[in-house]
Amino acid sequence: MPKVLFLPFQIEEKVASEETIIDVAMRLGIHINASCGGIGTCNKCKVMVESGEVRGEKIEDLYFKACTLKPITDVVVRVPVESQYDRRALLRKTRAQALERREEVVINPPISKHFIELVPPTIEDNTPDLERLFSHLGNRGFSNVTLPYTTLRNLPHRLREKDFTVTLTLFRDGPVNRITITDIEPGDNRDKILGVAVDLGTTTLQLELIDLTKGELLAKTSDYNPQISFGEDVISRIEFARKKEGLKILAERVRERLFILIEELLKEAQREINEVSIVSLAGNTVMTHLFLGLEPKFLREYPYVPVAKYYPTIYARELNMPLGENVPFILSPSVASYVGGDITAGVLASLMTKEPEITLFIDLGTNGEIVVGNQDFLMCAACSAGPAFEGGGIKHGMRATSGAIESVSIDPITLEPMILTIGKKKAKGICGSGIISLLASLFRTGLIDRVGKYRRDIKHPRLRRGEEGFEYVLVFKEDSATGQDIVFTENDIENLIRAKGAMFAGYQILLESVGLTLQDLERVFLAGTFGSFIDLEDAITIGLLPDLPRDRFYFLGNTSLQGAKKVLLSQEKREELNRIAQMMTHLELSNHPQYMDYYMAALFLPHTQEDLFPSINKEN
Amino acid sequence: MPKVLFLPFQIEEKVASEETIIDVAMRLGIHINASCGGIGTCNKCKVMVESGEVRGEKIEDLYFKACTLKPITDVVVRVPVESQYDRRALLRKTRAQALERREEVVINPPISKHFIELVPPTIEDNTPDLERLFSHLGNRGFSNVTLPYTTLRNLPHRLREKDFTVTLTLFRDGPVNRITITDIEPGDNRDKILGVAVDLGTTTLQLELIDLTKGELLAKTSDYNPQISFGEDVISRIEFARKKEGLKILAERVRERLFILIEELLKEAQREINEVSIVSLAGNTVMTHLFLGLEPKFLREYPYVPVAKYYPTIYARELNMPLGENVPFILSPSVASYVGGDITAGVLASLMTKEPEITLFIDLGTNGEIVVGNQDFLMCAACSAGPAFEGGGIKHGMRATSGAIESVSIDPITLEPMILTIGKKKAKGICGSGIISLLASLFRTGLIDRVGKYRRDIKHPRLRRGEEGFEYVLVFKEDSATGQDIVFTENDIENLIRAKGAMFAGYQILLESVGLTLQDLERVFLAGTFGSFIDLEDAITIGLLPDLPRDRFYFLGNTSLQGAKKVLLSQEKREELNRIAQMMTHLELSNHPQYMDYYMAALFLPHTQEDLFPSINKEN
Repeated sequence: MPKVLFLPFQIEEKVASEETIIDVAMRLGIHINASCGGIGTCNKCKVMVESGEVRGEKIEDLYFKACTLKPITDVVVRVPVESQYDRRALLRKTRAQALERREEVVINPPISKHFIELVPPTIEDNTPDLERLFSHLGNRGFSNVTLPYTTLRNLPHRLREKDFTVTLTLFRDGPVNRITITDIEPGDNRDKILGVAVDLGTTTLQLELIDLTKGELLAKTSDYNPQISFGEDVISRIEFARKKEGLKILAERVRERLFILIEELLKEAQREINEVSIVSLAGNTVMTHLFLGLEPKFLREYPYVPVAKYYPTIYARELNMPLGENVPFILSPSVASYVGGDITAGVLASLMTKEPEITLFIDLGTNGEIVVGNQDFLMCAACSAGPAFEGGGIKHGMRATSGAIESVSIDPITLEPMILTIGKKKAKGICGSGIISLLASLFRTGLIDRVGKYRRDIKHPRLRRGEEGFEYVLVFKEDSATGQDIVFTENDIENLIRAKGAMFAGYQILLESVGLTLQDLERVFLAGTFGSFIDLEDAITIGLLPDLPRDRFYFLGNTSLQGAKKVLLSQEKREELNRIAQMMTHLELSNHPQYMDYYMAALFLPHTQEDLFPSINKEN
Repeated sequence: MPKVLFLPFQIEEKVASEETIIDVAMRLGIHINASCGGIGTCNKCKVMVESGEVRGEKIEDLYFKACTLKPITDVVVRVPVESQYDRRALLRKTRAQALERREEVVINPPISKHFIELVPPTIEDNTPDLERLFSHLGNRGFSNVTLPYTTLRNLPHRLREKDFTVTLTLFRDGPVNRITITDIEPGDNRDKILGVAVDLGTTTLQLELIDLTKGELLAKTSDYNPQISFGEDVISRIEFARKKEGLKILAERVRERLFILIEELLKEAQREINEVSIVSLAGNTVMTHLFLGLEPKFLREYPYVPVAKYYPTIYARELNMPLGENVPFILSPSVASYVGGDITAGVLASLMTKEPEITLFIDLGTNGEIVVGNQDFLMCAACSAGPAFEGGGIKHGMRATSGAIESVSIDPITLEPMILTIGKKKAKGICGSGIISLLASLFRTGLIDRVGKYRRDIKHPRLRRGEEGFEYVLVFKEDSATGQDIVFTENDIENLIRAKGAMFAGYQILLESVGLTLQDLERVFLAGTFGSFIDLEDAITIGLLPDLPRDRFYFLGNTSLQGAKKVLLSQEKREELNRIAQMMTHLELSNHPQYMDYYMAALFLPHTQEDLFPSINKEN
């Protein structure tokens, strides 16, 4: 791995194989002007190679485009800077450290296969098939067993195919303490038992295929939630569900897509559809309602009542999913209308309920769900943050897909931006992590004040009065993919400040409700893919995350999926999940008498109360 | 009610309003020649009215046709007889006495409606709908409650329609000890709860509509089992089920017909389809399998194994029946391939398990099922009697419908028959009760010998050699509805003797297996509609019923339907039914070492062993 030494900053760093020099610079917080997102067309990111061997595109004889530049040997690169003050921009990007939560889980899935050899009937003992089976099971200690009608219909043939030796698939439906025979196969088929774990996200569906004999991951995949065509966020989907057939359409689309993804997984793992024996899903309350075809409208109507907290197990046939008729779909329990199964599953996966450390669990998805607790207590709330951090309600906001600006810095002297896009494509818009960094950069460079208004006294070609008031031009149209300027308006800033204010007020109220303060937090867990991309410093700078020692922040990845998977592997984990849902006290923020005060106080950058953000205020 | 005095017999009898003189004569065993079945065309039933006022058709000035003759006042009627020996024909028809088994049943149906008033949700308590409901039920002592998916889907709207007051339909599925909420209706709907009891017969479907609040019968109806088009008896239906889609067709047809009949019941009772909350069915094992779409073929393949003894409850949606989706169908348990739910339900209705008297329960339907027992034990068997007693395998046999010869006597001197048909139509054939009486009459008059062969030495225009050997012409073609002679062949006689022999050997083996003899029987219960029509003397004469004091025979009616109804009314009765099925030991006759000997010995009229039939052998 070659190294690069950046001059005049005297900062040395290793270069990963897929990185260009501009990527490394962005990581280190070294500003290099860049307007095209790293695609190589704006010709602004010029750097001088003082020594070493490189590949890359030259510009103006002496320079290379940093966005094309890759070192072959160790290199020394000089970045042209306007003044020594540019060093002020040096702010190494810090991501939360990844934390893989591992625990020893004894493989004991809620569904299991059992090979049994019945004594074939004779004229002396022509006990009916069903009672022959039940009696055998009773002798092996299985009582309270039921057989669905569809399985009963198959029973006589299945028994006789291999001389009364069969493999039973037994599903122990924990919450109702009952064993259901979900399938009967001739002969010994014990080694073929698969489970599918699903994170049922508003935007994305993520799936894993698990071999339940060993708990081994066989394949994983993901795709957009096809309901997106009917509404980007949960609210617009609830609205769509009010239309005639709306709910039916939403339910069908996501089930169909799930089935296609399951087929993909099976193809990759070279396994058969009839080996899929169980599906475990975790999703927010709205997604779970829509998947099940349960009326969602009361979730958003006062007083926000879900249809259920613990969802009964639903079988493939009831969902019209072309898996085995009795394949159970188990759903992670919800706590409230806006604290759903993704959060309970997430808390399960986080292991925070097994440890003494007081932990704040934050899922910054379409909404912001937060949980505070440890092994002794759990308290949760939903912050009505809205979708701003996923690009919603932001003029040029977009989801984190190809062409989205994901990294931003602004030179404090020139006020010129450096942007990088996902996939190094021409910029289409800005996604969540870019939005946070942009807001933080605008604040750091003094382009905006503490209430989020552009400084009217600064004259700069990128700062102008647009149709919707003052705005900063991040990308001029000649460099954008849309042929339009990509701007960041005061409206956008206001929306973001409201969103982060809602989150921050949420932390405060939630902690206060259990007699704690932010300083008592020993750990902050960031869940969801978003948590891995946001820059910690930037997020703290704008007051989205609390100003705590950076080593208390951990990124846990897709805890919803991890939780859904744990439940597949262990009946005990399923019970633990249900206990978590039971234990989790929900605080209705909108109803809290102090909430408005805390929220109003958070509508500043980083916050009205300066002592809450000592590291930020010291800096500015 | 006027009286008639028959001369020269000096027998006086009351005449019911719907009776003609010939009906009364038949009842009393007074022979009057009659070939047209009572329709008034054969002109043979001439009688002289010696005094009194009558209505009727005259013939040859002095005589009336007895089949048209009705008394207005008391009358004296003279029957022309060939000789004083005709008195030998005097054998009063004796039916088994009807016994209505009544018991006090506390109304406690397995399904019941409960009105509940939930506290509507507030922002302080926005517990989800399902948990709000469960918590309320828990407080009222209902635990282990489950909600089917379809009910869950309706839950939020139903709750809100009348401000969180609802009526729940709770189904307590005894065998699995679990309560299912099968319906939720807004407001108070407790008074609308109906049950349907069904006797699922091979030939006939009989239904009753019951108001489950009071246990009151609202309406009843019956119709043929539409599966008849695909096979008259259980064996031919099992054969049809082997065809592609055969089983599906059989299942669908009977379900469709049942639904139509339920609609008829509701119309008659002026009640609504959504009030039907439960359906209780009792049928033989084959009919139950076919209704449920369960593979029937192993029922008739050695070693004769049913799919199930206790059938799980099946819901309307699983049967594609357009009732409420979760309306449960509960099925009376089977004991063996040929001792089904009609018999267990029948034994329940007979109350024989509550009394000390040793009782033989006989259901002479398509097959012959027999049970012996009392409060301490129950032993059952199926006799492979075949359908002869329903007209099957008899050249001119037919079911007991319009035009069937149901009563027969033969004059011992003239050897001329007296026949009466159902509905007084031209004769189409002979039904079960007619067949039994005919065989008994042929035996009594000496037209056949003890092995069932026609006496070759008797010359008579009705006795002849036909296509299939010797036969007796019961109706000449000019009097028949078919334009053909209606005859009774030696083949027919052989089939009947085999059938009655199978029954009789069955009684003997069954009794012997519990250390009893025929003489130990304190009661004989005849079940099924057939039991009410056969003539006791005739049935004993041919050896179909044992030769016991006639007052030990009781006719119980449709005990299958009565049992199905009891189960609707009382959870305890349902448990009792299951205990009966558990308690009933099944004896596989075909496998019994002595069966063949007993059977062979019974292939005589009335029996090889004369001492078994003292009253018959004394007579002949």
